[in-house]
Amino acid sequence: MTLNHSNFELLSNETAITLAKKLGLVKTDATLKCREIGDGNLNYVFHITDTATKKGIIIKQAVPYAKVLGESWPLTLKRAAIEANALIHFKSYCPEFVPQVYYSDEQLAITIMEDLSHLKIARTGLIDGDKFPLLSKHIGEYVAKTAFYTSDLHLEPSAKKEVARNFTNPELCKITEVFVFTDPFFEELPGDYEVELTDAAKSIWNDQEVILEVAKLKQSFETEQEALLHGDLHTGSIFASDTETKIIDPEFAFYGPVGFDLGQYTANLLFQAVTRNPAGKEEIFTHLQEFWDTFEETYTSLWNTQNKSPFRQVNGYLSYVLTKFRKDAYGFAGCELIRRTIGLSHVADLNVIEDKETRIAAKTTTLKIGAFLIKKREELDVPAVIEALKQHTLPTYSTL
Amino acid sequence: MTLNHSNFELLSNETAITLAKKLGLVKTDATLKCREIGDGNLNYVFHITDTATKKGIIIKQAVPYAKVLGESWPLTLKRAAIEANALIHFKSYCPEFVPQVYYSDEQLAITIMEDLSHLKIARTGLIDGDKFPLLSKHIGEYVAKTAFYTSDLHLEPSAKKEVARNFTNPELCKITEVFVFTDPFFEELPGDYEVELTDAAKSIWNDQEVILEVAKLKQSFETEQEALLHGDLHTGSIFASDTETKIIDPEFAFYGPVGFDLGQYTANLLFQAVTRNPAGKEEIFTHLQEFWDTFEETYTSLWNTQNKSPFRQVNGYLSYVLTKFRKDAYGFAGCELIRRTIGLSHVADLNVIEDKETRIAAKTTTLKIGAFLIKKREELDVPAVIEALKQHTLPTYSTL
Repeated sequence: MTLNHSNFELLSNETAITLAKKLGLVKTDATLKCREIGDGNLNYVFHITDTATKKGIIIKQAVPYAKVLGESWPLTLKRAAIEANALIHFKSYCPEFVPQVYYSDEQLAITIMEDLSHLKIARTGLIDGDKFPLLSKHIGEYVAKTAFYTSDLHLEPSAKKEVARNFTNPELCKITEVFVFTDPFFEELPGDYEVELTDAAKSIWNDQEVILEVAKLKQSFETEQEALLHGDLHTGSIFASDTETKIIDPEFAFYGPVGFDLGQYTANLLFQAVTRNPAGKEEIFTHLQEFWDTFEETYTSLWNTQNKSPFRQVNGYLSYVLTKFRKDAYGFAGCELIRRTIGLSHVADLNVIEDKETRIAAKTTTLKIGAFLIKKREELDVPAVIEALKQHTLPTYSTL
Repeated sequence: MTLNHSNFELLSNETAITLAKKLGLVKTDATLKCREIGDGNLNYVFHITDTATKKGIIIKQAVPYAKVLGESWPLTLKRAAIEANALIHFKSYCPEFVPQVYYSDEQLAITIMEDLSHLKIARTGLIDGDKFPLLSKHIGEYVAKTAFYTSDLHLEPSAKKEVARNFTNPELCKITEVFVFTDPFFEELPGDYEVELTDAAKSIWNDQEVILEVAKLKQSFETEQEALLHGDLHTGSIFASDTETKIIDPEFAFYGPVGFDLGQYTANLLFQAVTRNPAGKEEIFTHLQEFWDTFEETYTSLWNTQNKSPFRQVNGYLSYVLTKFRKDAYGFAGCELIRRTIGLSHVADLNVIEDKETRIAAKTTTLKIGAFLIKKREELDVPAVIEALKQHTLPTYSTL
């Protein structure tokens, strides 16, 4: 489908309020405030609040280019419809972890949804030392449910193909293909890294074993339609509190390998595991273990109770599937660790470290761990990853 | 897209001629003959010839159900458009091996194409002892070219996703999912086999290693979008002579694992390898080797000269891809051998054997070889398959 952009018009604080009133989503006689709070790269986000009741709504509008990449990287507005549809799909499987969509409009490229401003972006919270004791259990449950319910094991395979067709998302997948799986792995392609990381970066570019494994992982990302993924499941796509978790921003949603969602979340926990002090690291190790345990337990339970495949009871099949998810996840996590360190899009977890030496050391470690995960992914589990991190016994990079 | 069937009308010999005249594909003053020659399960095929010039055209029309499965297995007519589009795609990559499409009409579900009646269906020819000295080289070249040119290595990955979306083919894939990958592997599901094969069939149903591997192969078929496949590349989908080869009937076309096309052709050669006398077997072994050699040489050459991936020169990547194709292919070939023996759709190669004892022995062998290929696919190549067939040293089934 080609969208006609002629009806597209960027919202302002004023027209956002007018729209909300017109749709009956706020009281017409209320005193309303509107602020643009978007800090992402692809969208504007308008937060409208009723100054009396303090209740709010969010209007998210896609713009026809990637903000951070400039107008030279055009993106159709179709991603707004993909995001709205993905939220609706995911909410049907995991109502407690997905915001409510009130309205969406493909022409205006907007999605109007639940205000989550009582929660905190998980990345910010983790950097601030917030505990979020349920966060990783919730994400594990969310990935297990979305992965299982959108797969050929639960959907009729013919129906799944139609869903997958509707979630064909070439433009957003291309961003991942270029910025996660390609540019960070070739010296001659665009990158963004501190000069002190040059040697560590060169060690990656010159490591043919890493590059070969990344080629395989990229191929998996491009070809394997296992389930409807979030597609960008880092800690900046999650709102959290001590009791609540909401996963937002699924504009990268597409049918892909389940390990990609698992790996993105894992990697973004690992940034914290690298940068924290020993007690803080232990908290993150607990998150890591709870994430994987909850994912595997939930997925196993769904397999045993709601799997429609005639092969569901074949000895070894569930184990094969879980093992594949795990191997893929550690590989994808490795790519994420590396691209967030030397690629075009960085993470605050590393960049908030003010002391240069400490920051460079942390970034050198994320590169090393990234390469380690990519190369050893066939034999890893959470304890093995924790062990490697704890003991700092990663071999010197060149022999990894 | 949902087709409106209200404009659909089954052609007759007379209306087929009228249509051909109206489209200017035959001379209006010619004396024309028309015969319905379809022997497939899903379509009618009208062969129109000019009795003076002997020149002809083919009009293929899809019907809104599978002929062999009855009207209880409804199929939308969209497959006619998929077939026409697939022929056009494949012809752009392999002009010499694909018939010319003159016209197609989605509403009537028809494709009008080149008359190939000077050629013989390869299955029939092979059963008759025709040599077809170039057949397997041609098919190897065809699969290599279609697999490479439609993959992420040659198409821009974003463009490939759009092509894949257009070739979403849930109904025809379902036929394969049910009749190739499911029913033949469970005793309680529908099958069609001679009573003397009961024990050999039970050996398959009770072999949990076979069933687990089939589960993995089915998952690969359902999830891996490596390239635009023919989807039904058996020897009944190929017209051949000593010098020419044309691949027809790509109505099952979809984005899937390359090994599936490779495996279907391999399996259908193996039916001949099983049923022929020793000298005839040698001819088929030559076909097998030529098929794989040509496929690998052609694919390698395309990789080295036309691969647009930044990873193309990474040591080991091509070898990884070719090895994956081979493992997948032998697994899929094993499924095809089994499903054509005890599933709903049989092959003439086996059924033309009049002597019952010989026929049952041949079918028992195809079951054994099928299970052997499925279980040993990780370690096979053509010489190993030939060796197993030659020496009849397949272990007794239960220890396979």
